[in-house]
Amino acid sequence: MNARIEIKALVFDVFGTVVDWRSGVARDVAPFLKRYAPHVDAFDFADQWRREYSPSMEEIRSGRRPYTRLDVLHRENLVKVLSRHGIAGAAEAEVDALNLAWHRLDPWPDAVPALHRLKREFIVAPLSNGNIRLMVDMAKRAGLPWDAILGAEVVRAYKPSPQVYSGTVEILGLAPAELCLVAAHNGDLAAARRCGLSTAFVARPTEHGPHQTTDLNAQADWDFVAGDLNELADQLGCAS
Amino acid sequence: MNARIEIKALVFDVFGTVVDWRSGVARDVAPFLKRYAPHVDAFDFADQWRREYSPSMEEIRSGRRPYTRLDVLHRENLVKVLSRHGIAGAAEAEVDALNLAWHRLDPWPDAVPALHRLKREFIVAPLSNGNIRLMVDMAKRAGLPWDAILGAEVVRAYKPSPQVYSGTVEILGLAPAELCLVAAHNGDLAAARRCGLSTAFVARPTEHGPHQTTDLNAQADWDFVAGDLNELADQLGCAS
Repeated sequence: MNARIEIKALVFDVFGTVVDWRSGVARDVAPFLKRYAPHVDAFDFADQWRREYSPSMEEIRSGRRPYTRLDVLHRENLVKVLSRHGIAGAAEAEVDALNLAWHRLDPWPDAVPALHRLKREFIVAPLSNGNIRLMVDMAKRAGLPWDAILGAEVVRAYKPSPQVYSGTVEILGLAPAELCLVAAHNGDLAAARRCGLSTAFVARPTEHGPHQTTDLNAQADWDFVAGDLNELADQLGCAS
Repeated sequence: MNARIEIKALVFDVFGTVVDWRSGVARDVAPFLKRYAPHVDAFDFADQWRREYSPSMEEIRSGRRPYTRLDVLHRENLVKVLSRHGIAGAAEAEVDALNLAWHRLDPWPDAVPALHRLKREFIVAPLSNGNIRLMVDMAKRAGLPWDAILGAEVVRAYKPSPQVYSGTVEILGLAPAELCLVAAHNGDLAAARRCGLSTAFVARPTEHGPHQTTDLNAQADWDFVAGDLNELADQLGCAS
């Protein structure tokens, strides 16, 4: 495959690939915990909140529940984790505000400059399970220069359901291989490849903290494998 | 209403309000007509193509036809107009290329600088009947700094159907009045107001050429009435 000729658009996994969700959530959770549960570690809390993420989407992927945007699932999952720690007494508005931690995540240091380089040559858009408003707030705060907000809410399904990838190919009016998914997660890339998309693995070995054991390396012959998004831009022949 | 406090996002009609579709389509149609029908005026052809726009969407608004993106409707409408002029012999690929004239429209001179001003204070996005790829191509070529691509394809309905406005309010997680539609068309604003949105009229008295008779003025007490988008940014208190 001569990917430099074929690829017309790059879509990105966001949580973990473009932004560092764990540090960002822990940062916003810390002052809340200081008030309500000073014995709970903010990173542990972030990990617990994140662990509810996939099961909550599975209800929708399986068809047991109609499409519900991630802001709502995050809020429900937050209440679960709070209750598990016996944290009560926070006002609804305070819980609402904490739920927006996912809108305020910082990008990995290479993300913003690399996206500006990639945007000159390709359509660039998130292909995240995050809802549109979450992605817009994050992008405005962090300066992520997306051309569009694509992903779960546009197709009303959650990755790795095939309709997320195939529906996005159709929206962009491309052949599947002309669209490349960029992700730090082998499972996401495998699902995209099953739909015919091109694939780029970007290593994010500290997404889950210093003791991460998953997705440390590319586990298949993805079309591109890069140490960060600038390295990917180099491989795609983008000017620096 | 103190709109400066309430409004959080501005969504824009695009064809006519942000870009000059008539000049852009005529420019791309001219070399095609020179080859196949030198007696046909390019502006007349643009007007005829545009006249098929609303009836083709009405099939979908009425429920007689499932949602079909505007690129497809534009292509069907183009074939109609070509056939009406007895123009035959153009290759399919040539007709496809001409259909993309709508992806290559130039913004009115005030649009790009004003959108940069407005983007600092508000979420800015198109709320157009144009499909996502059309809006992305147009924005990349013209430098329109949208925060997201909203509109017909995201909600799978065409303006002025109420679900386009109300569905967008819901996606953005806003109260209806926190979302303001900016449009050069009184009918679009009236439909938005019926859904509770705030409204801004921007005059585009030459959208339909030098003899325009419609939408020359605001026909209701819209929340904002401006001569162009920079004037609207002034009224909304945006820095220049």
